[in-house]
Amino acid sequence: MSKGSDRLIYLPLGGAGEIGMNAYVYGYGKPGSERLIVVDLGVTFPDMDTTPGVDLILPDITWLKERRAQIDGIFITHAHEDHVGAIGHYWDQLGAPVYARPFTANIAKRKMVENGQPEGAVNVVGVYPEVIKCGPLSVSYLPISHSIPESAGLLIDTPEGRILHSGDFKIDLTPGVGDPFDPELWAEVSKDGVKALVCDSTNVFSDAPGRSEMTIGPAIAQMMKDASGMVVATTFASNIARLKTLALAAVEADRSVVLLGRAMRRMVEAATEVGILKGFPPVVSPEDALQMPRENVMLLVTGSQGERRAASAQLANGNYMGIKLKEGDTFLFSSKTIPGNERGVIRIMNQLSELGVDVIDDDGGKYHVSGHANKPDIEALHEIVKPQMVIPMHGEHRHLREHVKLANKHGRTGIVAVNGMMIDLSGNTPTVAEYIETGRTYLDGTAKIGQFDGIVRDRIRMALNGHVIITLIVDENDEPLGDPWVELNGLAEVGGSGAALVDVIEQDLSQFINRANAKTLRDDVKLEKELKTIARRTTQGEIGKKPEVMVIVSRLS
Amino acid sequence: MSKGSDRLIYLPLGGAGEIGMNAYVYGYGKPGSERLIVVDLGVTFPDMDTTPGVDLILPDITWLKERRAQIDGIFITHAHEDHVGAIGHYWDQLGAPVYARPFTANIAKRKMVENGQPEGAVNVVGVYPEVIKCGPLSVSYLPISHSIPESAGLLIDTPEGRILHSGDFKIDLTPGVGDPFDPELWAEVSKDGVKALVCDSTNVFSDAPGRSEMTIGPAIAQMMKDASGMVVATTFASNIARLKTLALAAVEADRSVVLLGRAMRRMVEAATEVGILKGFPPVVSPEDALQMPRENVMLLVTGSQGERRAASAQLANGNYMGIKLKEGDTFLFSSKTIPGNERGVIRIMNQLSELGVDVIDDDGGKYHVSGHANKPDIEALHEIVKPQMVIPMHGEHRHLREHVKLANKHGRTGIVAVNGMMIDLSGNTPTVAEYIETGRTYLDGTAKIGQFDGIVRDRIRMALNGHVIITLIVDENDEPLGDPWVELNGLAEVGGSGAALVDVIEQDLSQFINRANAKTLRDDVKLEKELKTIARRTTQGEIGKKPEVMVIVSRLS
Repeated sequence: MSKGSDRLIYLPLGGAGEIGMNAYVYGYGKPGSERLIVVDLGVTFPDMDTTPGVDLILPDITWLKERRAQIDGIFITHAHEDHVGAIGHYWDQLGAPVYARPFTANIAKRKMVENGQPEGAVNVVGVYPEVIKCGPLSVSYLPISHSIPESAGLLIDTPEGRILHSGDFKIDLTPGVGDPFDPELWAEVSKDGVKALVCDSTNVFSDAPGRSEMTIGPAIAQMMKDASGMVVATTFASNIARLKTLALAAVEADRSVVLLGRAMRRMVEAATEVGILKGFPPVVSPEDALQMPRENVMLLVTGSQGERRAASAQLANGNYMGIKLKEGDTFLFSSKTIPGNERGVIRIMNQLSELGVDVIDDDGGKYHVSGHANKPDIEALHEIVKPQMVIPMHGEHRHLREHVKLANKHGRTGIVAVNGMMIDLSGNTPTVAEYIETGRTYLDGTAKIGQFDGIVRDRIRMALNGHVIITLIVDENDEPLGDPWVELNGLAEVGGSGAALVDVIEQDLSQFINRANAKTLRDDVKLEKELKTIARRTTQGEIGKKPEVMVIVSRLS
Repeated sequence: MSKGSDRLIYLPLGGAGEIGMNAYVYGYGKPGSERLIVVDLGVTFPDMDTTPGVDLILPDITWLKERRAQIDGIFITHAHEDHVGAIGHYWDQLGAPVYARPFTANIAKRKMVENGQPEGAVNVVGVYPEVIKCGPLSVSYLPISHSIPESAGLLIDTPEGRILHSGDFKIDLTPGVGDPFDPELWAEVSKDGVKALVCDSTNVFSDAPGRSEMTIGPAIAQMMKDASGMVVATTFASNIARLKTLALAAVEADRSVVLLGRAMRRMVEAATEVGILKGFPPVVSPEDALQMPRENVMLLVTGSQGERRAASAQLANGNYMGIKLKEGDTFLFSSKTIPGNERGVIRIMNQLSELGVDVIDDDGGKYHVSGHANKPDIEALHEIVKPQMVIPMHGEHRHLREHVKLANKHGRTGIVAVNGMMIDLSGNTPTVAEYIETGRTYLDGTAKIGQFDGIVRDRIRMALNGHVIITLIVDENDEPLGDPWVELNGLAEVGGSGAALVDVIEQDLSQFINRANAKTLRDDVKLEKELKTIARRTTQGEIGKKPEVMVIVSRLS
């Protein structure tokens, strides 16, 4: 294998051109037979607009499955769902060893077990200078600060030079829980030259310098002291540092902490198990809390994004495990609403308002800080690492583009590489090597369906247009047996004529069938087409909608 | 009719407990036979989460229809869709004369004509001190500043005292187009005492004083001068002042103005017709713009909320009327994204990014100001009017509640009155007189369906769960003729067993039918129930989803 013909590649299969569903591939070797590693296998979440009924959205890993034998390892940078959520659904199709730091591994193992995969496939690893050898690549975990403990960037040494993969990060010197950002460490690993910095782009449009987790504790404690009744606080359960910030503020305000919601209890449990959560105050059960004065209670609950079944939503609905909020209580969103979740969050705020509960939200950053680096902090990392090239990741197209502009501003080359663009990093500038067909895979119940299979499209059409079902029985002599029968689902019952829509459609279909010649009645395709056309035309005339129509012709034989 | 037994009522049927779909009723007289006026008849917009396929959402006016003979007038405060949008759909069911100022009347008449209603029913009225007598009530239009020209509050004189209905408003002394806020006028009409101020609550959570339309012109002009290629700007078409601000900024930057989108052209036309838009620069056609240097063009386009068919979306898709955006062009959102529209707006931003277009958004208020009064400005109106009571309207529950708190803070009484709460204003404090059943009416194609009719619920279920249709033919002797037949819509084709889902369901149904006794086969209800249960159970087992099931048993006779 001559080095001359080998190449170093980077291929995002998820997370580049979107925020969510992270899945990045690095490889080295002869084109087409590179040895590969996978960095993160995350999920993204469905919505009613584009993916009704879907349970989870996973990256399309067809390309990886076809190269299963070339994969030397799967590296999980941190335990957020958009980085680890797909591991249990996909591991059996990839089969390579999984590596993660202890807390992340704890979460990853739970996901493996839940999906019937061997938890032993997940290897707990230490941080740099510990090295995991994967064929021609060597990987080390570099601690970095983020909104979940034990986040890490990756140092990837290749025959073509060193790559630093930032992972999700912010620059926080006092993160509360988890590793502080260590500028010396990142400078140290960069001092002999870094070929490429593959870098988080989420907050590239935020111009202000980022703030530390430690800056919000006092305001939260004050707010909890000022509150007269019960206080409820919600944030992402995985934000262990925030849970601790909130819990310590509660203690300072003479309040006992109650954990509500499965994810909340599970995350505190996991963080405690691996020893990263220390000094968290003792918690009390919901039952015990009910016996305490309201001003001595703080509920720490799931559902900061308005999720319908989370503890927040249930409290807003009036009751969760016997706890009822009322006039004088305060509800704190120590979180930012992710675009698309506004309606759900606002619904909860209004329900709380109806109960007389005062709602306090992020309020310009007083009670929440982001887990991602703002523009000045992204620039700071560029300056520490001084890479030859910057490859933005973890961002929508607009974020990646802005991030490249930022790199260019400081004289560095960069490329907007979205999902499916295989980038050749071997030379002095990144170039597109190939375009790989990618997409999304939907976990729908227990089935995995493709984004373009048409199944979800059919559902959306039924939801927008309603559904007409026509049945017709044709006898052995190709004569209609009775009239066509119509059933409606999701359509107005009465139209412009004032008669029942179902009757009007049946009349029009019967009229057609009664006049149809033998040739038409023998021809299923023609019959279906005509019946469908009539049903759509009649419905359009009666109620101004063109429905989805299904025709079922039963032939007796 | 002794005055003692008469009462003064306020009844919101839309707009209170939500932002949108405004419809307020005032009345005076004996309980149950009050003479009534209606203030605004607006719409709100559907979304995929709760109202897939619905075209428009209208207030439920059942209560008003039953009291048609008691209605003396319909007053439209301004021409925003959430205040005038339902007039064409409902006028024939109410029949009362419609009153509006010239620009609003122009828009209302178009809506009447579009829906086959007599435009003559819309009466153009002047402002205070002109008075419209409606039985025991007298109404005058009080000019007030807002984000559309000729907005007005209403002065309603009643035997119980004076009511001021603020309408949508902001305090803007230099609104560019439309009436400046006139503190003397509002003080003048308030000097003899105001019983109730019924007041806009939209921005009650915004603590900063509001800013004038005039403050943003210079920044926009500078941005347009700095831009190197074509500039595209989008805002609500009805914000005539903003259109003028943007157009004048374009002229200052040596750019010709092109209007793109039907609503944009229509609004400029209407504003010009009634003479309120003066000094708008001449516009050029898209064809002519194509012949001009890009740096001399500014497109003013519809679609600031990410609407899929608007000019913005089409430009982002690559082409609108021959105009193609490209690297070096700039796209300005001179607007705020309404909660719930974020995904659509972000989609367009990313498509523009893919074209190489720089996107500039509101950016903390540099290029946009709100049309609604912030908290200090709401307080200012309270102080000018000094009402006996404050009735917050135009807001979600949380806004109304906060607004009452604000009134209370200054020693004024108030009440959170949401849709359907009839408030008796006769006494010294507002009290709930009755609860009226209200809701929403969906315009679905051309049909009007009720919120609780179950039709939209059925669509949502099909979208979430998929649809299974089972047909079974039973002969004259109650014997099944052939096997049950299954069709799927919106469901995975292959399940856990690896066989086609449709085949697995059919097998399980056939097995049941073959074993079913004569009694079951004669009983349609039982048969349907059993087939449905089996289909759901089998689908659950195969793909982990419980589908909607429709069973059609055809009996030959």
